Amino acid sequence: MPSYAAPLRDYEFCLYELLDFETHRALPGFEEFSPDVVKPVLEQAAKFTTDVLYPLNRLADEEGCTLKDGKVTTPKGFKEAYRLLCDGGWPALTCDPDDGGAGMPHMVNFLFEEMMCAASLSFGLFPGLTRGAYVAIRQFGSPQQRALYAPKLASGEWAGSMCLTEAHAGTDLGLLKTQAVPKADGSYAITGTKIFISAGEHDFTPNIVYLVLARLPDAPKGTKGISLFVVPKVLVNADGSLGARNAVSCGALEEKMGIHGCPTCVMNFDGATGWLVGEPHQGLKAMFAMMNAERIAVGIQGLAIAEASYQNAVAYARERLQGRSPSAPRDASGPADPILVHPDVRRMLLTQRALIESCRMLALATAQWLDLADHGATPELRKVAEARMALLTPIVKAFLTDCGSEAANLGVQALGGHGFIRSNGQEQYVRDARITQIYEGTNGVQAMDLLGRKILADGGATLKAVLQPIEADALAKSVDPRLADFAKPVLAALNLVQSATATIVARAKTDPAETGATAVPYLRLLALTLCAGHWLKAVELSLPHGNEEFYRAKIATARFFMASILPQSRALADIIAAGSAPVMDFEDAAF
Amino acid sequence: MPSYAAPLRDYEFCLYELLDFETHRALPGFEEFSPDVVKPVLEQAAKFTTDVLYPLNRLADEEGCTLKDGKVTTPKGFKEAYRLLCDGGWPALTCDPDDGGAGMPHMVNFLFEEMMCAASLSFGLFPGLTRGAYVAIRQFGSPQQRALYAPKLASGEWAGSMCLTEAHAGTDLGLLKTQAVPKADGSYAITGTKIFISAGEHDFTPNIVYLVLARLPDAPKGTKGISLFVVPKVLVNADGSLGARNAVSCGALEEKMGIHGCPTCVMNFDGATGWLVGEPHQGLKAMFAMMNAERIAVGIQGLAIAEASYQNAVAYARERLQGRSPSAPRDASGPADPILVHPDVRRMLLTQRALIESCRMLALATAQWLDLADHGATPELRKVAEARMALLTPIVKAFLTDCGSEAANLGVQALGGHGFIRSNGQEQYVRDARITQIYEGTNGVQAMDLLGRKILADGGATLKAVLQPIEADALAKSVDPRLADFAKPVLAALNLVQSATATIVARAKTDPAETGATAVPYLRLLALTLCAGHWLKAVELSLPHGNEEFYRAKIATARFFMASILPQSRALADIIAAGSAPVMDFEDAAF
Repeated sequence: MPSYAAPLRDYEFCLYELLDFETHRALPGFEEFSPDVVKPVLEQAAKFTTDVLYPLNRLADEEGCTLKDGKVTTPKGFKEAYRLLCDGGWPALTCDPDDGGAGMPHMVNFLFEEMMCAASLSFGLFPGLTRGAYVAIRQFGSPQQRALYAPKLASGEWAGSMCLTEAHAGTDLGLLKTQAVPKADGSYAITGTKIFISAGEHDFTPNIVYLVLARLPDAPKGTKGISLFVVPKVLVNADGSLGARNAVSCGALEEKMGIHGCPTCVMNFDGATGWLVGEPHQGLKAMFAMMNAERIAVGIQGLAIAEASYQNAVAYARERLQGRSPSAPRDASGPADPILVHPDVRRMLLTQRALIESCRMLALATAQWLDLADHGATPELRKVAEARMALLTPIVKAFLTDCGSEAANLGVQALGGHGFIRSNGQEQYVRDARITQIYEGTNGVQAMDLLGRKILADGGATLKAVLQPIEADALAKSVDPRLADFAKPVLAALNLVQSATATIVARAKTDPAETGATAVPYLRLLALTLCAGHWLKAVELSLPHGNEEFYRAKIATARFFMASILPQSRALADIIAAGSAPVMDFEDAAF
Repeated sequence: MPSYAAPLRDYEFCLYELLDFETHRALPGFEEFSPDVVKPVLEQAAKFTTDVLYPLNRLADEEGCTLKDGKVTTPKGFKEAYRLLCDGGWPALTCDPDDGGAGMPHMVNFLFEEMMCAASLSFGLFPGLTRGAYVAIRQFGSPQQRALYAPKLASGEWAGSMCLTEAHAGTDLGLLKTQAVPKADGSYAITGTKIFISAGEHDFTPNIVYLVLARLPDAPKGTKGISLFVVPKVLVNADGSLGARNAVSCGALEEKMGIHGCPTCVMNFDGATGWLVGEPHQGLKAMFAMMNAERIAVGIQGLAIAEASYQNAVAYARERLQGRSPSAPRDASGPADPILVHPDVRRMLLTQRALIESCRMLALATAQWLDLADHGATPELRKVAEARMALLTPIVKAFLTDCGSEAANLGVQALGGHGFIRSNGQEQYVRDARITQIYEGTNGVQAMDLLGRKILADGGATLKAVLQPIEADALAKSVDPRLADFAKPVLAALNLVQSATATIVARAKTDPAETGATAVPYLRLLALTLCAGHWLKAVELSLPHGNEEFYRAKIATARFFMASILPQSRALADIIAAGSAPVMDFEDAAF
């Protein structure tokens, strides 16, 4: 019953029409990625994810992972699918050609990630974590470390896993206790217990490369005393062959709400041998530097779930016959009309759709800045791109994952009682999506990162640079009769953002609670405004093609976004305007 | 780790201060329910639900129900808890004293229901369904049927179950096919398959009384050809003793997202013997007449989950140490501060709290009208109360269950990664709450019932009568300097509701899609406005008691509601103003 097909047409629209990928690929290193290279990549990705991964997802949720004698067994078919993933070269899509990678733009890779996670989020987490480990080693590892690990991670021959959280140290990593004691040979003995380690142990690969945060004996307290280590599950000989088993093991699997196909492990490091990556005490910095792409990827997971849920709900709404159209029977000869005729069902589906397309535009535009931060022609351009990407990243992570859960819940509601039944696949999306709002930094933390580190820290300069072209565009279009209906709401939203920002900046000077109290509504307000700007552009591009269904749908979805989603911005602005008092003027004892 | 205590203090506030229960109990039949009768009832209910039910809830979710050889086994401890429930006389709280019931006001019973469902929603469904069957038999059954079934249902000796849905007939009951063929002895042979039957089969009681919707052979098509039948699992002899097994059986249990402790059954009626309840072809009418209390009860389930989730999240936020207060360390000697200091955590907790207290006021005020509809002194008063209650009921069902899911999700977010772990109990609330937005009429159907049957049908007269006293109250208080800050937002919200109603009424005359397209945002707008009216009263009552923490918290929660939740009303009004075009102007093929 559940079904999924990659929305390739919308991918093309976003890449080539909205974001001018043809110019983007003129960047050094991207020259070869012409449409006749990218198109088959996306088509093969669609085929692999739809034919191989998607059929595994429902059963993997039921079967879950099991731990026995320290070994983790993944759900039926996952191991074989992983083999095919590696055979196809998919893990290496964005990896450096020097490491055997394809050197593809993030813009393309995130589309692959969307398809993979829409087909099976649990499965998609494995290569996602490997890519994270690859980036950390490549960016901060020594030449020797890079030579030893990077190609194997790029090919997927070995898997990666990120070991940050401890029982008492989640958001506050400064509290972590895992110890790293230097040994005579330059390596370290790592001892401690990490929790919530996704894909910490599994049966995909002969080796797993752990990136572990730990403290050196002389480490200062808090976040400034954390170092990053590489700890392979199986020690690697100098020639790259596998040696002895390292002293790291999976102590338990968590029983959790969703993503049952991916093991969430308690990992015990019992004097395991590791090597310092980068400088001592600079571990968090390294982690955060590589986390931007990871955070965008988590946002993409939310988008992916939203898309899968939407498609499932639409399929159901076309087939399920209940009641009659409010105007005239759609099919008077049948017992009832498909529920797609009901305005409230359409409202739910269009909400999903408008959120999905909003999220996709926002994420790909951010991926474009991420590509530019690496491949921009000049250091100045790269610096500008880095700042834009850094500002947009927490928005993508939080907004897309919030939309993922919202869309998944709408999908369940569209199916009614059948949405609550496991075999229909829809409730799994709610359970799977839920973690994306939490891991890789909770969405509250993302919002504070946005306001604190990305907006207040530079006095709003980067934000201004992000908003300025949107405003200029909307101003110009507000006098165009074909576009005014779309441009005016953008200007209104921009106005709200600008005034909210000014208010917060002013208050934050004297009120230490202001940022934390307003961050979440502020992030959403800004996200909606940025999306509105993209929609305006999308409408402009679509208007000349009124004879094609795709473009008519694009315009109708934009209209729905402006009428039914963007109005939230006024409420959010009001909530922000109230400041921190409503949140802080409540006595702790009275909760 | 998870914990729950019944919020008895807030119950007292709602009953005696906000809703003047002392006057209410002057109604005929309620005279005996003085505070010294009600208080021990609530205290015993708190003790029973907290000590007996709550400890079963987590394990029941893991264990679920099993079907073997047609018999359903409920989770460990449920059967014994049910015995204690019956021993305590809890199922009979609102039942007629003639049937051995206590004849208590719904206002009190709904507080018991809240406690029971907060402790274990799965468990609470069983007596809830029995009460539904009791009400149907008592209201529409023949004297003989009432004598045979009502006392046993009131005592809980037998359980009840409602059999409406079929695979092809959910929201659209007009499509149902189950047949009832008259037999010579005046009984009927019932044949058909019902799905999604909560507590359709279990091991609590020696008999289960099914209320079944089916068609007589001469029945007109659609909703006007549906009759109601009583079908006991075990046939009952004239003297009330149990006779032969009836031809009804459980064919399968659904695998579902939550409420695992309550079996959701496929029920097969294979020529089962049943008796007509009420008039032929009037089954739906009977069902809807008894459904008001049921729908309010489902709303209460949402409130219950919200309360349980809130308490769990608060307990965690007090214990979990991460990061530092934005101003100064709360506990500089400890490794970190409790996360309760963080503005965003407080925002999440206060959102839960404000929604919970809003929902409780709204539900109890509705229960008061429900009591008045039965016990009002004159037919005129009862008629007025009936209309008010009928208007408020879909709001209670939809708004409270939406808030239940919202609060449950905020609870998970407050716990971060630990919220995703099953043993912490928080994610269960998300899974359990999800169905309440769907069953007993989806929330979209509730919204259409509100707009179509309760507002448009009488030209807005009942709505006007509901809003008028709120407006008068807010107008009077808007010039009181102590209350103006709370009264003005109420007036603003009322203004939005009135204008949205006028717009919808006008448009619905020519646009058949208008109601369906605007119903859901309209219901929420009206719900928020009604809650705001209650909050204004709550603040007025609390202001004189500024020396007590309870009242200070009440005022602070009201302030949070006005600042952070009520602003949604503006967005909702904007969405409604856009009408049906954004929803309907999308081509079906393009979804």
